[in-house]
Amino acid sequence: MNKKKIGIIGATGYTGSELVRILTNHPAVEITMITSESRAGELFSDVHPFLQGIADQKLVSINEIDDYELDLVFLALPHGISMDFVKRFKDKSFKIIDLSGDFRLNSKEIYEEWYKLNHIYPEGIEKAVFGSPELYFDKIKEASLIANPGCFPTSAILGLAPLLKANIIETDHIIVDSKTGVTGAGIKAKSVNMYSNVNDNFKAYGLKNHRHTIEIQEILDGISGKETIVQFTPHLLPVDRGILSTIYAKPTEKMDDIKLKELYKAFYANAPFVRLRKQEPAIKDVRGTNYCDLYVTYDKRTNTVIIISVIDNLIKGAAGQAVQNMNIMFGLDETKGLNLIPLNP
Amino acid sequence: MNKKKIGIIGATGYTGSELVRILTNHPAVEITMITSESRAGELFSDVHPFLQGIADQKLVSINEIDDYELDLVFLALPHGISMDFVKRFKDKSFKIIDLSGDFRLNSKEIYEEWYKLNHIYPEGIEKAVFGSPELYFDKIKEASLIANPGCFPTSAILGLAPLLKANIIETDHIIVDSKTGVTGAGIKAKSVNMYSNVNDNFKAYGLKNHRHTIEIQEILDGISGKETIVQFTPHLLPVDRGILSTIYAKPTEKMDDIKLKELYKAFYANAPFVRLRKQEPAIKDVRGTNYCDLYVTYDKRTNTVIIISVIDNLIKGAAGQAVQNMNIMFGLDETKGLNLIPLNP
Amino acid sequence: MNKKKIGIIGATGYTGSELVRILTNHPAVEITMITSESRAGELFSDVHPFLQGIADQKLVSINEIDDYELDLVFLALPHGISMDFVKRFKDKSFKIIDLSGDFRLNSKEIYEEWYKLNHIYPEGIEKAVFGSPELYFDKIKEASLIANPGCFPTSAILGLAPLLKANIIETDHIIVDSKTGVTGAGIKAKSVNMYSNVNDNFKAYGLKNHRHTIEIQEILDGISGKETIVQFTPHLLPVDRGILSTIYAKPTEKMDDIKLKELYKAFYANAPFVRLRKQEPAIKDVRGTNYCDLYVTYDKRTNTVIIISVIDNLIKGAAGQAVQNMNIMFGLDETKGLNLIPLNP
Amino acid sequence: MNKKKIGIIGATGYTGSELVRILTNHPAVEITMITSESRAGELFSDVHPFLQGIADQKLVSINEIDDYELDLVFLALPHGISMDFVKRFKDKSFKIIDLSGDFRLNSKEIYEEWYKLNHIYPEGIEKAVFGSPELYFDKIKEASLIANPGCFPTSAILGLAPLLKANIIETDHIIVDSKTGVTGAGIKAKSVNMYSNVNDNFKAYGLKNHRHTIEIQEILDGISGKETIVQFTPHLLPVDRGILSTIYAKPTEKMDDIKLKELYKAFYANAPFVRLRKQEPAIKDVRGTNYCDLYVTYDKRTNTVIIISVIDNLIKGAAGQAVQNMNIMFGLDETKGLNLIPLNP
Repeated sequence: MNKKKIGIIGATGYTGSELVRILTNHPAVEITMITSESRAGELFSDVHPFLQGIADQKLVSINEIDDYELDLVFLALPHGISMDFVKRFKDKSFKIIDLSGDFRLNSKEIYEEWYKLNHIYPEGIEKAVFGSPELYFDKIKEASLIANPGCFPTSAILGLAPLLKANIIETDHIIVDSKTGVTGAGIKAKSVNMYSNVNDNFKAYGLKNHRHTIEIQEILDGISGKETIVQFTPHLLPVDRGILSTIYAKPTEKMDDIKLKELYKAFYANAPFVRLRKQEPAIKDVRGTNYCDLYVTYDKRTNTVIIISVIDNLIKGAAGQAVQNMNIMFGLDETKGLNLIPLNP
Repeated sequence: MNKKKIGIIGATGYTGSELVRILTNHPAVEITMITSESRAGELFSDVHPFLQGIADQKLVSINEIDDYELDLVFLALPHGISMDFVKRFKDKSFKIIDLSGDFRLNSKEIYEEWYKLNHIYPEGIEKAVFGSPELYFDKIKEASLIANPGCFPTSAILGLAPLLKANIIETDHIIVDSKTGVTGAGIKAKSVNMYSNVNDNFKAYGLKNHRHTIEIQEILDGISGKETIVQFTPHLLPVDRGILSTIYAKPTEKMDDIKLKELYKAFYANAPFVRLRKQEPAIKDVRGTNYCDLYVTYDKRTNTVIIISVIDNLIKGAAGQAVQNMNIMFGLDETKGLNLIPLNP
Repeated sequence: MNKKKIGIIGATGYTGSELVRILTNHPAVEITMITSESRAGELFSDVHPFLQGIADQKLVSINEIDDYELDLVFLALPHGISMDFVKRFKDKSFKIIDLSGDFRLNSKEIYEEWYKLNHIYPEGIEKAVFGSPELYFDKIKEASLIANPGCFPTSAILGLAPLLKANIIETDHIIVDSKTGVTGAGIKAKSVNMYSNVNDNFKAYGLKNHRHTIEIQEILDGISGKETIVQFTPHLLPVDRGILSTIYAKPTEKMDDIKLKELYKAFYANAPFVRLRKQEPAIKDVRGTNYCDLYVTYDKRTNTVIIISVIDNLIKGAAGQAVQNMNIMFGLDETKGLNLIPLNP
Repeated sequence: MNKKKIGIIGATGYTGSELVRILTNHPAVEITMITSESRAGELFSDVHPFLQGIADQKLVSINEIDDYELDLVFLALPHGISMDFVKRFKDKSFKIIDLSGDFRLNSKEIYEEWYKLNHIYPEGIEKAVFGSPELYFDKIKEASLIANPGCFPTSAILGLAPLLKANIIETDHIIVDSKTGVTGAGIKAKSVNMYSNVNDNFKAYGLKNHRHTIEIQEILDGISGKETIVQFTPHLLPVDRGILSTIYAKPTEKMDDIKLKELYKAFYANAPFVRLRKQEPAIKDVRGTNYCDLYVTYDKRTNTVIIISVIDNLIKGAAGQAVQNMNIMFGLDETKGLNLIPLNP
């Protein structure tokens, strides 16, 4: 079989290095081009020295893209920059998986309200498919542009989808209390991700207005056919990677644990990366993998459904889910190259 | 002034070492006796070597208590053991501050339901005052037996008290999503507090039935005069000490941030250890101190009040609050000896 | 090709779970049997829940070993227990890789002096090959019993071997200052590996008499043909996994950086898991992999050679090196199944 | 008694916040002025929010210094900036304790070689006293300008001084293998102190040419009367604060543990902040305090003296030692205001 030719646009961040980490061992593709404007000419392993001897490709500028034959490109670029690329290369034959937030929302207006940025390519919004394989497998198969989901939304949506699809919870009062590792803030040094500010510490941030709120709500709206209202509160954990979301919802009908567990089992029957856990999952249980681990239970005393949802924010919340989408787009088994086993401890 | 004579019953745990750390620099008391059954005869600093040269008192057995003149004893004993002590020494003249859960709840029946232990001294329950100085200052002043509050309840109750007192939230649907450091699990080595199980990790535990649920509810019932229902979910953070509770409640009347902040300001006008913060507080902001830092805000979009409440579980959640209670019982300024400044970083 | 049949003796520790993690994705072998005396009848993933859905083999007792056809067994047992197994099954046809210290030293006498244990099977000592592939590839190929090296010795020996082989340092004054992650102390909860005792902390231990001292010395003696004296000081890092050794040696002839780097390059020309790094390596650069990263430099001012040697103690220091030995024993490429890429961050 | 009036020059870093943390509870001084050029006009607690309600002084510019009556100023400024201040205000009556490296070395030439900076005020070098109270108490008492020691040098010098004073080790071959917490790199966000680069990680840096090498050597030269050669290797620990130095030296005469311990006991008989420990000390044993904990032992097998020296880099390695110097300069008990007890855990 000919290997598919892959480009990675944006090499310096965590998303770039995770994509390379995964694709290096992927049997059906080869990394043909990695770009970086700031580090062009250097090796990928100069930027990420732990990959010395493993990923020593030379970085090139995006302007050299015509020198390469490409089947698919991953955009590991910041919000607001991705749309430039997509617009500029809209007539190219390669498929695009965009890991930024530029094409995740439903409209230019909503994007501009929550991202405080002008959207220069609304046609892309129309065309893009939200890359959640557990929900939109068939659409992803046909897509040419994937908006890869945000990390928090992935954990929240996979935790809530079965309930909203079954239409058995109140949609106007869903609480998503999320806790994330530091890598969610990116690879640039800033006060918020300094060791001394994070270590032995914990805090909430982005109360009431985090951008992922609208992403979660729009997808849940689509699943349930109703307007949902989500209270989303992110917190910063002293860990490198991982998201755990604790989700509270009110059932609209009689509920018990057995019913709940069967609902989730049926919903995720064909989802190889969703594990329904016997006990409450921990962040380290999925570290380095594409799993989303779920635990659901019903509290009769308070009449509340509680869901614990855990992912690795850099993998199921970014690069791994992107590769899963790529596999689907190429007609490969969606688990190909993603046989990652948790590093624990 | 004569210094008050203090006994500490139970030397080997964190509560014992924190009490010694605080009382060693307290100007109005002296530690007269520290007991340990398992380590009697050794020095306190043999058990806690970091206190070599600072706290080298010899440990004695509880059976030697009659050799000491004591004004007050702190019980740093496990649940189920404290009540034995209180019963045995009920006719002694010294005051008692019990840091276990044995006398915090309202009745023998409730205790036995949630603690799965037989309560041998229900008279103590009648007599004990719940040691939350911000709520029960006057009762504490007169008490001879204090039930020092649990760590999670301290953070939850101080976060919610103003709302319940003002009677402006729905009482049947309060969510307390709490995150604690490892020291909450005590000083004994067990799988749950092993480094490799905690480091770079995060998980929920005790879903639906943690003992502190009932403690929180009973106190909130008392403040509000109504029955409250609290969903309490603890999580284990990879930090040594600190609790952060994220609390969600539904207002029963028109709400805004200004109204909310004024309510809290008025309620805590005379509370030297409650800091109303301008920004979301972090766990390290109170580390090593007796502060409870609060941040309150109203989300108009979801019609929800959000409260962030932060304490050091070993201090405001245990030894520090106990010393604050002691000061009040002795008629001292409640801040005496508690001029602790956060260690940050 | 028929897959080789593998047994893992001892399932509950880190070595067992790392072996399973690696072998699950190994293309040329299958895990046929995993034993545990304390957990027989349960699933491997009951013991290590993060492997739910990945490694759900049923655990069996060692007494059932005759029910299985086995090509090779890994012994993931404590020191002192491994020798029982080796003696008991000495006439079986399967090859054995022992990850304990029971067969690493040169004689029963030395073992008993440093391990304070009676050695019941000195014949095994005669037969065993020290499983350091970079040094003893040919012997490993022919061996039936491998003594897999200790974690500290692996880092020290790979750091020093080129110098001793070339006979260009003083052998009576080598300093190995090592720092290890917590998993080196095993999976059993004890005071020394409690979170609160390790987090934000650091200490030396085992000064002057750590067992790995003699293992390092004996191997270096063999390489150099002289008696070596090594000052080995381990320290406990607040990290899960990883060892970094800082090694100081005095050259016996004129030295410079170029000469030094060429010596190492030549020595490790055929060693796929030794990376000679451009900069000082960090522990996370090899996390989750079988690499040993080395950095060597000469300080003219002090006339000292400094070597930094980094491994993942659970992989190159245990399970990974064991699989590398297995590959060699089976005539496979030594890197087979070990294409692990560092998890960083 | 009139309180002494103190100025702190430079408010934004860790040294500034630690000075404020200590001096706020100091009974004999008051903080009269805190300067910051970048944050003038704001409150100290705006820069360090954890001090809200504790240290709300308004920050002023250095140019307003004439509005204040001052007995002593602490310079919490970067290297290269402190000397500007000292030169500019050389005729003022206040005493100066400089926490930078500008006046620690013996000559303008040596400074310029190791710091790669032009020294504009060599007269200050002549005048300055090296602020190590255990070595230079009498000189400090009379000084008007103190060069407060570096953090690594404090740990190394206190560990080695008794041996060099007694003239019983080889001076040309001393190894100081040091491990430091992240705060040693300062409060500015940079790649090296990002959480994801430090957490679960460990590395050496500054091999062969760290500036503190010369500071250590010059002081040891002075104590021993000989030229010393020190191999100093710093490493970066995943902890906020603390330094542990493992020191190796060769005795020049017959040695044993008793002799060694007696030597240290005698040398530090009058040093209230040096604790000679029964066991190997850990970093957390001194966290938040002005202690230097030492453990010394002799390895007969290798004929080597090993010293473990532990400090809190921000306190005994900076702000605490500075306050100790201040106490001595004011004729106060050197422990005044420094009754800090380790925060552990």
